[in-house]
Amino acid sequence: MVVNGTYYLTVWMEGQTVFMIDQTALPFHFKIYKSNTYTQTCYAIENMIIRGAGAIGSAAGYAMAQAFMEAPLKETVNFIENARKTIENTRPTAHDLFYAVERVYIAGQSSTKQAFTKADMIAHQNIEDGRLIGEYGNDIIPSKAHIETHCNAGWLAFVDYGSALSPVYIAARKGKDIFVYVDETRPRSQGARLTAWELQNENIPHAIIPDNAGAHLMQQGKIDMIIVGADRIAANGDVVNKTGTLEKAIAAKTFGIPFYVAAPASTFDLNSYNGTSITIEERNENEVHYQTGLTDNGNIQKLRLSNPGSPAINPAFDVTPSSYVTAIITNRGIIEPKNEAIKSMLKIK
Amino acid sequence: MVVNGTYYLTVWMEGQTVFMIDQTALPFHFKIYKSNTYTQTCYAIENMIIRGAGAIGSAAGYAMAQAFMEAPLKETVNFIENARKTIENTRPTAHDLFYAVERVYIAGQSSTKQAFTKADMIAHQNIEDGRLIGEYGNDIIPSKAHIETHCNAGWLAFVDYGSALSPVYIAARKGKDIFVYVDETRPRSQGARLTAWELQNENIPHAIIPDNAGAHLMQQGKIDMIIVGADRIAANGDVVNKTGTLEKAIAAKTFGIPFYVAAPASTFDLNSYNGTSITIEERNENEVHYQTGLTDNGNIQKLRLSNPGSPAINPAFDVTPSSYVTAIITNRGIIEPKNEAIKSMLKIK
Repeated sequence: MVVNGTYYLTVWMEGQTVFMIDQTALPFHFKIYKSNTYTQTCYAIENMIIRGAGAIGSAAGYAMAQAFMEAPLKETVNFIENARKTIENTRPTAHDLFYAVERVYIAGQSSTKQAFTKADMIAHQNIEDGRLIGEYGNDIIPSKAHIETHCNAGWLAFVDYGSALSPVYIAARKGKDIFVYVDETRPRSQGARLTAWELQNENIPHAIIPDNAGAHLMQQGKIDMIIVGADRIAANGDVVNKTGTLEKAIAAKTFGIPFYVAAPASTFDLNSYNGTSITIEERNENEVHYQTGLTDNGNIQKLRLSNPGSPAINPAFDVTPSSYVTAIITNRGIIEPKNEAIKSMLKIK
Repeated sequence: MVVNGTYYLTVWMEGQTVFMIDQTALPFHFKIYKSNTYTQTCYAIENMIIRGAGAIGSAAGYAMAQAFMEAPLKETVNFIENARKTIENTRPTAHDLFYAVERVYIAGQSSTKQAFTKADMIAHQNIEDGRLIGEYGNDIIPSKAHIETHCNAGWLAFVDYGSALSPVYIAARKGKDIFVYVDETRPRSQGARLTAWELQNENIPHAIIPDNAGAHLMQQGKIDMIIVGADRIAANGDVVNKTGTLEKAIAAKTFGIPFYVAAPASTFDLNSYNGTSITIEERNENEVHYQTGLTDNGNIQKLRLSNPGSPAINPAFDVTPSSYVTAIITNRGIIEPKNEAIKSMLKIK
């Protein structure tokens, strides 16, 4: 990824320090959060200074490595066990977090150096997975494609490249003249804030659109394909992703527009037989009522946007049935959203 | 309509003064704008202190009546001609405005009193049209209906009752235990601001939802019916309404949920053969980038919400093909969204 012309990662580690792009300050300020202890890294995960499945996993792995470095000679075991629990409690529903913490924890039993090496390997695997999704996805992007995307599934959600945006970046770097319609993605506006900011830094032509405008632009023939990320993909290919994904998928089918989901193999959850068996998180209604933004003076402020006397409902995700998904772009190739194809990609018999 | 327990109209006239609910201050402050001259009424129309087809039409009629009252004994004709042009230029695409101004202009040729009587008649006809839409619409609302609506087609857009919300008000007053899901309706958030505020004043249970959440709630079986208003309805029943209406209509069809459009006879435009022949207004991108809201100190402030370097696209309306519309609720009964039914309702052969 490139920010203001400089090469960056979303999260990385040097010595005992973990560095992260501070996503709470974006898109208004670009700041690097430096964390010298595992406790500070936990704070960053908990407070969404870093967010997105892949990025959280890598940060958690680094936090576990930091804990091994910090552990006192006496009471090492207690310190490590306690650190592990603290890290796991930062975002208890994040699947990648537990996976990374466990692997670094096991590696650390050999040596502190092994813990760091494993954490760094997890982060670099995440980069490579993203790059491969980009290479495979690029194959299906026409040379002058107009692509719609929802939420943020770009480098900020991973260590680099991303899932839905990785094919866009690879296509643009290979000289394709593409244009991206960025769904605002209310209520947290990850599209208007993070995806738009990424695309600007990558010099890719784009426009933010209200979430309401998708079907209208599809009807007018302005959208050639849709690519979104996924928070979880069930065994039958049903896709759990940011609320609004389902509306786009339904509209895309109506207007005959291909609808792609991009995700690494780690996003597939064979324990979920289908999407309807997955409970959808209901988030705080204040995310709908309030939003932060930039004042004319350059300060970040919070405003009430809605009628003060009214309640709101805020489902975080929705479930797109596999029948609406044209194909899934993974780091192991493009597959059909079907049980057999998913098992075969995951090399499970 | 009831505001803080008191009966109000959106716009009314006493003596030479026109009174209007100031919609630029809503939902944060309830203020009445008093206009003593036709020029002040023009200012109110132009600056969206009053908005919505029916409300604008009535305000314009009253402005024309004010002009007759203000006209000096000398130069009366010039004054009136000049006033008419000024009023017509406030919102030059508003169909109801031209209709009201012309009728009051003709009536004023007899006497100033006739001008006022005609203007008042137009406003009261608007109230009666809304009430009739409500009575007809109430017949199709089940007793415990969960209704989704988009944008604001309530009393604030008319003189009283509204179009899409009128059946809701009549149903609630007749004791039906209904619940309304209010689409936020980005970018101008008329749902979260105006519709939610109206429903709160009418004591009707409701919740604001992000525009992204509609299909999800439909999929979960939480929505029994959708009622929206219309800015224009073509001869074949295609509906032009606020952007996002099309997405809801497509999702509703997918999940087998009835999708109703409510509009008075004046909204039908037989000169438009179908919806695709109607040009969709593209509004300023800053409506997507910026939004006003309430600070903790009770001040109204404007914030930049999106990435400062990115452009946005802001289509004001979209076209819902008549095949997605279950029926149209008019002041002359509920009709099929078809050419013959529309002509018959309009009494045109």
